[in-house]
Amino acid sequence: MRELVRPIVQAPMAGGISTPALAAAVSNAGGLGFLAAGYREPEGVAVEVAELRALTDGPFGLNLFAPAGPPADARAVERYAARIAAEGELGEPRHDDDHFDAKLALAAELAVPVVSTTFGAPAAAQVEALHAAGCAVWVTVTTPAEAELALAAGADTLVLQGFEAGGHRGAFDDLAPNDLGLLALLRLVAGLTEVPVIASGGIFDGAGIAAVLAGGAAGAQLGTAFMLCPEAATSPAHRAAIESDAPTAVTRAFTGRRARGIVNRFMREHDAVAPSAYPEIHHLTAPLRRTARESEDPARMHLWAGQSHSRSRSIPAAELVAELAVETRGARTTATAGSAHRG
Amino acid sequence: MRELVRPIVQAPMAGGISTPALAAAVSNAGGLGFLAAGYREPEGVAVEVAELRALTDGPFGLNLFAPAGPPADARAVERYAARIAAEGELGEPRHDDDHFDAKLALAAELAVPVVSTTFGAPAAAQVEALHAAGCAVWVTVTTPAEAELALAAGADTLVLQGFEAGGHRGAFDDLAPNDLGLLALLRLVAGLTEVPVIASGGIFDGAGIAAVLAGGAAGAQLGTAFMLCPEAATSPAHRAAIESDAPTAVTRAFTGRRARGIVNRFMREHDAVAPSAYPEIHHLTAPLRRTARESEDPARMHLWAGQSHSRSRSIPAAELVAELAVETRGARTTATAGSAHRG
Repeated sequence: MRELVRPIVQAPMAGGISTPALAAAVSNAGGLGFLAAGYREPEGVAVEVAELRALTDGPFGLNLFAPAGPPADARAVERYAARIAAEGELGEPRHDDDHFDAKLALAAELAVPVVSTTFGAPAAAQVEALHAAGCAVWVTVTTPAEAELALAAGADTLVLQGFEAGGHRGAFDDLAPNDLGLLALLRLVAGLTEVPVIASGGIFDGAGIAAVLAGGAAGAQLGTAFMLCPEAATSPAHRAAIESDAPTAVTRAFTGRRARGIVNRFMREHDAVAPSAYPEIHHLTAPLRRTARESEDPARMHLWAGQSHSRSRSIPAAELVAELAVETRGARTTATAGSAHRG
Repeated sequence: MRELVRPIVQAPMAGGISTPALAAAVSNAGGLGFLAAGYREPEGVAVEVAELRALTDGPFGLNLFAPAGPPADARAVERYAARIAAEGELGEPRHDDDHFDAKLALAAELAVPVVSTTFGAPAAAQVEALHAAGCAVWVTVTTPAEAELALAAGADTLVLQGFEAGGHRGAFDDLAPNDLGLLALLRLVAGLTEVPVIASGGIFDGAGIAAVLAGGAAGAQLGTAFMLCPEAATSPAHRAAIESDAPTAVTRAFTGRRARGIVNRFMREHDAVAPSAYPEIHHLTAPLRRTARESEDPARMHLWAGQSHSRSRSIPAAELVAELAVETRGARTTATAGSAHRG
């Protein structure tokens, strides 16, 4: 992969928010734009990659969800379905592997520059196949133990997801969380490997990027910071929530897997009883959340957002990348001047 | 206060771990040592300050616990006492203000260079009295809203405690947590004020310090990183736990107030039912925890530790400060070189 001009990666945001237009704007501005293949059929992913390639000659990434573990306890899912039945139309709580193997094969076939995974690492043979196709392989990790697994599989880059990050926790095992803050995770993993690490979680400005670069990261990945850009397909109700300074929390209430979002009524009422059952609960609540999004009802939709969401900027993605780059340079210069002053 | 040679603050650790010998070693090495006045009678605090002053001419800090809110629901405390009765000898679950006003007056009388508070800010008049006595006032905060309150009271410096930190969460209200990671908290608060901010939580090496300096902090506060120093009064069982890579979690099980410690049997068994009742539960479990410490039983004691505890070093505090300073300089130089290279 050609080197990035800016150490800025736009996080993949599944569920439609990451558009080809957003990824292209970021890549054209010297960062790395990402498409999110999670929840999508391979055919739809191929269309999005073609759309993106029509908009940029730059490098870009494609994120895939690694398969979840065995099917959840059906009775736990049924109990939860009964609990939330009054909320609106529910879907069929099925288990699936999100077409992981088919989408990996597609990524290799399309020679996608960067393929990243969330919820787990590809198998070593799959990493080899991607390498043979010219794809760099990035794996999202939340702990040093997951970093070791990703490195053993042959990952070229680790994306370190701190506890601050919005959306799903990338933990390989939803039931064994270890919610490391980004800076602790960065320093714990930096000692394990020479492969580049990208830091993500709660970063919204150039001083935050400068901080993780000083802490040893090769770049920063920002998701929520891009959600107010006009190129993002963030719904109006979700945009309004991001602009507020409402608190966030981690919950299984929407998808059966731990994810950080802005606290709303649905989360408050159902969080305590939501089972670990992914993707069953994701499918169960999908129609409900779609209806809520369409009717702009923020009380019944997942308002994924990182801890610093209120500082997101409503400006075009190219402008955001340029501003972040200027701020990053400024913060690094100031820090160095301070160092010289102290002696 | 005289400027620090090293931007390194040793966190106050109540319960006996922060000794005058530890604080003196840090201050003599160019950092800022801290004594912890929490849980202690004013007379004992005066003795410790005198001991410390006999060991160093350098600046130092004294940390006080701001008073908790109103007394807890007595029935909730009784239920918890019944629940843990089989664990061993329990104490009287009394409410108190930890002699906050008396210790503030003592700090002013002794002209302690830095007075910091946890669980809340002093009143504006108290801050004025400390200023009149020549004391700088630092306030521990965990959210931007708490930072605003501390600034309104007249704080000279904010200690930003990230979610990663070991020991009690400094949140002003135990029932309204907002668990911001350190880097997010740092960047959210940096925009609010010109007063210096000190970053704490999960930092264990110089690259971590360099990161928070690049992120805008004036210094880093490290607690767990000093707990294996020979000058710290950390118990053998606690030292062994810190050297392991066991996960940590936040719990009210030991004191009735949220605090981060290494997960052990007591925490696993009682966390879910522990009420918010501080300092009642602290007093309730104190004899039990003292016995556990004396008998080196890690299953029944609070093993306070930050998220990166396994990376603490068993070396004298002066050596640790020197190593951290060298690492910090190295990380800042590398980061700058990297910046120049990128253009």
